[in-house]
Amino acid sequence: MARVNEHFLKLQAGYLFPEIGRRVAKFAAEHPEAKIIRMGIGDVTEPLPPAIVEAMHKAVDEMGRRESFRGYGPEQGYDFLRNAIAENDYQARGANISADEIFISDGSKCDTGNILDIFGTDNVVAVTDPVYPVYVDTNVMAGRTGSIDSAGRFAGLVYLPVTAENNFVPALPDGGVDLIYLCYPNNPTGTVVTREVLTRWVDYARQNNSLIFYDAAYEAYISTPDIPHSIFEIPGAREVAIEFRSFSKTAGFTGTRCAFTVIPKSLTGTTSDGTKIEIHRLWSRRHSTKFNGVSYPIQRGAEAVYSPSGKEQVRAIIDFYMANARQLREGLQSLGLQVFGGVDAPYVWLKTPDQMRSWDFFDRLLSTSHLVGTPGSGFGPSGEGYFRLSAFNSRENVAEALRRLRGLLG
Amino acid sequence: MARVNEHFLKLQAGYLFPEIGRRVAKFAAEHPEAKIIRMGIGDVTEPLPPAIVEAMHKAVDEMGRRESFRGYGPEQGYDFLRNAIAENDYQARGANISADEIFISDGSKCDTGNILDIFGTDNVVAVTDPVYPVYVDTNVMAGRTGSIDSAGRFAGLVYLPVTAENNFVPALPDGGVDLIYLCYPNNPTGTVVTREVLTRWVDYARQNNSLIFYDAAYEAYISTPDIPHSIFEIPGAREVAIEFRSFSKTAGFTGTRCAFTVIPKSLTGTTSDGTKIEIHRLWSRRHSTKFNGVSYPIQRGAEAVYSPSGKEQVRAIIDFYMANARQLREGLQSLGLQVFGGVDAPYVWLKTPDQMRSWDFFDRLLSTSHLVGTPGSGFGPSGEGYFRLSAFNSRENVAEALRRLRGLLG
Repeated sequence: MARVNEHFLKLQAGYLFPEIGRRVAKFAAEHPEAKIIRMGIGDVTEPLPPAIVEAMHKAVDEMGRRESFRGYGPEQGYDFLRNAIAENDYQARGANISADEIFISDGSKCDTGNILDIFGTDNVVAVTDPVYPVYVDTNVMAGRTGSIDSAGRFAGLVYLPVTAENNFVPALPDGGVDLIYLCYPNNPTGTVVTREVLTRWVDYARQNNSLIFYDAAYEAYISTPDIPHSIFEIPGAREVAIEFRSFSKTAGFTGTRCAFTVIPKSLTGTTSDGTKIEIHRLWSRRHSTKFNGVSYPIQRGAEAVYSPSGKEQVRAIIDFYMANARQLREGLQSLGLQVFGGVDAPYVWLKTPDQMRSWDFFDRLLSTSHLVGTPGSGFGPSGEGYFRLSAFNSRENVAEALRRLRGLLG
Repeated sequence: MARVNEHFLKLQAGYLFPEIGRRVAKFAAEHPEAKIIRMGIGDVTEPLPPAIVEAMHKAVDEMGRRESFRGYGPEQGYDFLRNAIAENDYQARGANISADEIFISDGSKCDTGNILDIFGTDNVVAVTDPVYPVYVDTNVMAGRTGSIDSAGRFAGLVYLPVTAENNFVPALPDGGVDLIYLCYPNNPTGTVVTREVLTRWVDYARQNNSLIFYDAAYEAYISTPDIPHSIFEIPGAREVAIEFRSFSKTAGFTGTRCAFTVIPKSLTGTTSDGTKIEIHRLWSRRHSTKFNGVSYPIQRGAEAVYSPSGKEQVRAIIDFYMANARQLREGLQSLGLQVFGGVDAPYVWLKTPDQMRSWDFFDRLLSTSHLVGTPGSGFGPSGEGYFRLSAFNSRENVAEALRRLRGLLG
């Protein structure tokens, strides 16, 4: 009698973005004439830059010739890419991370879920609220929670509210938290963490023997000086943190798929008898047993992100999206809305007008203005009354979206 | 206090192939002059066929232009690929599988490990012995076993020996087995399953409410008529089986990464109170939460496997490898060795001479003949005294390997 993992049955019906997709598809089918502008899912719209396209072509050609063909690559990724990341993303920022502490993967979403394989089910997990839903759902699947309550909180998880009231700075939890998810620049709120606040988190983790899952998928969007791009810029972080990074938002890889996870060799967890175990060793075992490396042409494409022309081209795309974010932010503010984020992140987080509920605002925006955003409550109970708009779009669509919003709210 | 998953500590030091890699690297470092021929890991050597290279170039170009750029794709894979698979691999063989029962992924190794996420830890698991180590190791990681004994068997797993004595046909287990791994054409033994034997397995699973994980990664190597290519050619299999397939060995994708898993919508598991749950729905939730789809250019490359020129080119490569397999098989037989497989699979499975232990034969072959194979005992206790050679190589290397083997054993 094959038994299912019953923890899956605790999950709500749909993952947030498929649910948005279903509602939009239904509306589009009923209103084929509507010119829908999608600012919901955080998916990039600009094409891959020429330096990356060129590198991928070159690698595809290598795969077509016997003398340069490559079969199984190292599960942890090719050295050419791990070295480029260590140099450019870490050592250049004074963060002491070596290439063999970097694991290449096909996505940060995958990694933030899969990393749970190497931790016991008895850990107490803290998440900010609102939060990227994958952190919560993957813990539910792994059996680290009880059921969901009417407010949308799973029993057993520690929720740390981040709202306008606390200026989007989560309070440090009382002791007893083992695994903590932090995401900066933040998805969904678009806010960032100062060096001082992040240092408090690292110190907290050191004092409480907790471990921080630090999701920095949006670090390339930081423009404010002295905002940390990596948790490993903070002294002591090598003993308490794992960092997740992605080429998805940095270089337009949402459909191309490449990311990486950094696990310092000095990071340890414990067994029930208190023995310290290297987390790097466990993840290495997991990665080589349940993963087979990222496609070679894709890794070559990612490597090109660090070439001089790649850097320039990627920077231009990020600047383009951030000009969108500025227009959105300023446009929404001019309509009298309360707006957060959008300075060091491609997301604008707004308070819904007239204290509308998030999904009501979603439905209203879709039905009257044919605009798609993401309901804040989809990210957690404390996101209720908020709404996320993404700056990943064409300039024309951003301008048109603002025109429609002025028509609706102005 | 971040607790690790202590089940990982039950695993033996290294996954088989990294262990082989370490021994070979050590020997190569000490003997830089040795011309080592690698027939250990089952990695392809022929380049990607032109039809696939062309399709990938075209897709890379699409990614470089705004009007054809693609961001996040469907987590389950693009319809163009799912349709091609359903038509060519299933419907054309009379297997009733629809496109939406196919989930595209980046590897069968990943899928056979990840599938365990959706099953309870209380299932009793059966594996053949010898077996592809990933099946065992991922169950150990998930906590479905006790410790390993001195013979190399994990407590709690049901081992079904396959040796020359039973003609490599595993006995049906007594009742009480919930999840069964079958791999045909078999890795490592290179043997296949007849329609009659596979029907017995399907009937067994139906009678016992068990579920079969059917790994058909090597189906493209079948040449003997009437050997089933898919378990879904067997009546009733839609109620009891999940099938894993890969482009790795079919089309040389070991470094390119694309595979798929077939979960019929009629397949169910149960909760502890006996409620039936659709496995398709659970995997769909898992796949969309912990995975983000396969790279678009790679999916286009996989689609080209089914084009007329793709089919022809892929067939030529498989014929090439199988001519290697025939030479290996016949060459080894002419040396008086007992040889299995190599007819419908790219692996030759041999009895070591003089009843040598598998790792001893490995070390002897490496040190005296500079040949790398895979010790049978690395696949399980019943593999002791056997040895796997792979036909994935150049014709020259196969001939040279046979020359060296004649020198050693002739």
